[in-house]
Amino acid sequence: MSGTAGTGRETGLIRKPESNSTVALNNSPFMRACRREPVPQTPIWLMRQAGRYMREYRELRARMSFLELCKTPLLAADVTVTAAERLGVDAAIIFADILLIVEPMGFELKFAKGEGPTIHNPVRTSQDVDRLREVDDVDSLEYVFEAIRQTRASLRGDLPLIGFSGAPFTVASYIVEGGGSRNYVHTKSLMYTDKGAWHALMSLISRALVKYLNAQIFAGAQAVQLFDSWVGSLSADDYREYVLPHTRSVLSSLTPGTPVIHFGTGTGELLELMREAGGDVIGLDWRVRLDEAWQRIGHDVAVMGNLDPVALFAGKDYIRSQAKKILEQAAGRPGHIFNLGHGILPETPVENVIALVEAVHELSAK
Amino acid sequence: MSGTAGTGRETGLIRKPESNSTVALNNSPFMRACRREPVPQTPIWLMRQAGRYMREYRELRARMSFLELCKTPLLAADVTVTAAERLGVDAAIIFADILLIVEPMGFELKFAKGEGPTIHNPVRTSQDVDRLREVDDVDSLEYVFEAIRQTRASLRGDLPLIGFSGAPFTVASYIVEGGGSRNYVHTKSLMYTDKGAWHALMSLISRALVKYLNAQIFAGAQAVQLFDSWVGSLSADDYREYVLPHTRSVLSSLTPGTPVIHFGTGTGELLELMREAGGDVIGLDWRVRLDEAWQRIGHDVAVMGNLDPVALFAGKDYIRSQAKKILEQAAGRPGHIFNLGHGILPETPVENVIALVEAVHELSAK
Repeated sequence: MSGTAGTGRETGLIRKPESNSTVALNNSPFMRACRREPVPQTPIWLMRQAGRYMREYRELRARMSFLELCKTPLLAADVTVTAAERLGVDAAIIFADILLIVEPMGFELKFAKGEGPTIHNPVRTSQDVDRLREVDDVDSLEYVFEAIRQTRASLRGDLPLIGFSGAPFTVASYIVEGGGSRNYVHTKSLMYTDKGAWHALMSLISRALVKYLNAQIFAGAQAVQLFDSWVGSLSADDYREYVLPHTRSVLSSLTPGTPVIHFGTGTGELLELMREAGGDVIGLDWRVRLDEAWQRIGHDVAVMGNLDPVALFAGKDYIRSQAKKILEQAAGRPGHIFNLGHGILPETPVENVIALVEAVHELSAK
Repeated sequence: MSGTAGTGRETGLIRKPESNSTVALNNSPFMRACRREPVPQTPIWLMRQAGRYMREYRELRARMSFLELCKTPLLAADVTVTAAERLGVDAAIIFADILLIVEPMGFELKFAKGEGPTIHNPVRTSQDVDRLREVDDVDSLEYVFEAIRQTRASLRGDLPLIGFSGAPFTVASYIVEGGGSRNYVHTKSLMYTDKGAWHALMSLISRALVKYLNAQIFAGAQAVQLFDSWVGSLSADDYREYVLPHTRSVLSSLTPGTPVIHFGTGTGELLELMREAGGDVIGLDWRVRLDEAWQRIGHDVAVMGNLDPVALFAGKDYIRSQAKKILEQAAGRPGHIFNLGHGILPETPVENVIALVEAVHELSAK
């Protein structure tokens, strides 16, 4: 701002350290909402905001596999930044997968075309659990940390970056089933028939997750999200006994001062227990009303959500009306981050996602 | 019981009309529980109790397709009776499919090997809805009614027989998606973008269901169950607007005096609304605690449930402990029918199912 600011580049050089500062990030609407502080307008970001519904992303993916993209920091960072800028959202989320942690545990992770993840050597017995490798360090996930550093370097200085992983139960369910599941027969059978092996598996995953998430924070993520995407398959009693202690141990071991989002779907009956397990922000899916859910878990925690991802397939008027409904349920109370109730679906029209972001900003502006 | 009872056959001839009477059926534990009357022990039956987990069933299915079996009344009746007798449960459920009603509506229903049902000409637009055929009569489903008559003729005279169908939403979701679905994108898109077409489709299905279920009752079913298996994908607001009026219209048009079970999964947030829609018995899945759910919907309605089907893969001690927990939650209150929270899974050990039935009877005996 002084006489040195002669060219655009010089202006940039001077501005960057200032706007990229911790102060700007900490005062961003997203970070303020995580701490339940008042915001000028409700922050919004969308789970899977960098994904197949975007042409730019599909073009990249035509040239390489999903895992190759995750493991190429420059491109992962580019995908992360492009999505956030294109949509005008209030946070970026690092391009990665909830299951990357299984590789340093010794599992072979694959993404078959058009299918979900598969793990080729699933764990079914206590002997299988005994053979698992303790994750002493997360150096082999350096590509994630490098992607975070590169994203942080090119992302707008006041835009927070979210790191993430699958939560212990969701990671365990893939490790035991060998992929996605409808009924979680193998996972629950292990739980019910061999508690010792189950808790050993969950502890091992949890210890690895603490290292992994703290390293993401150290690399430059301002917040982290724990995705317990499939935990809604459990009863509350099973959650309390088989999941809660492990999720709590992860959430209580993360770098202090970093907000954590604790998310799941189909969790209507689990929200109080998820809250008990921890997290600064509890993710809600569309099956619960935001006002009722927030009331139930208490207003001394922030919430994230909760538009049905399928609403983005309807017209812009419909999307706006639904955004309005959710904002009305949040009632302007500090501590609401707008999001979908689950990730953006592959066929979603990009213009509808942008329309949602604009509607949320406009309708919530003080 | 008189001098004519010389041979086994004669005894059978004399006994049958007596034990097969309406009185015996009406006084059975299952029927009493539907009406919330006291019972000597908690009645139990299991959804999909005749199915792939049974060797006898697999042997039959090796010789014919699922639909062929449904459409061969003698065999469908045999499968129905065999399962009920083998397990020692308190009700039989007619061997059929929740989607049979779509055939008289003009859809081509198929069950590909190892996959779920597919409908080859799915409905996606209002034009598609306009082309649908009103189901003037359900004569083409005569094979179901004949199976019910044949089952009734050979089933133990005091054992009630349950008829059933998919509920309007679940049937509509298959008709619109063309098969099973994870996200119900087409179904919800039709709802959100063309309310008129959606309600026309739901009304058409509902009118057909009333005819179909009443004909099952006329043929000899003592109770009917409406399976809204996938309704848990909806928010409460969507359920209220797009589903409740139709389900209510079906439930209020069924033959008076016949108990109706209204069932869904993932319905934790919908239970009050499902209750509002109707039914004498509300089905609960394992995600809700039976005591809390019953409290929420009110003790002036009966409940059915709610063991996790995966519990049947664990040992008999575990199964017994879980049965005990659920019975304790029911607290001996009249109006509890024991069941799983969803259908028996294909790999379930038969002996564990029998162990569950015995445990429920024994633990609940007054």
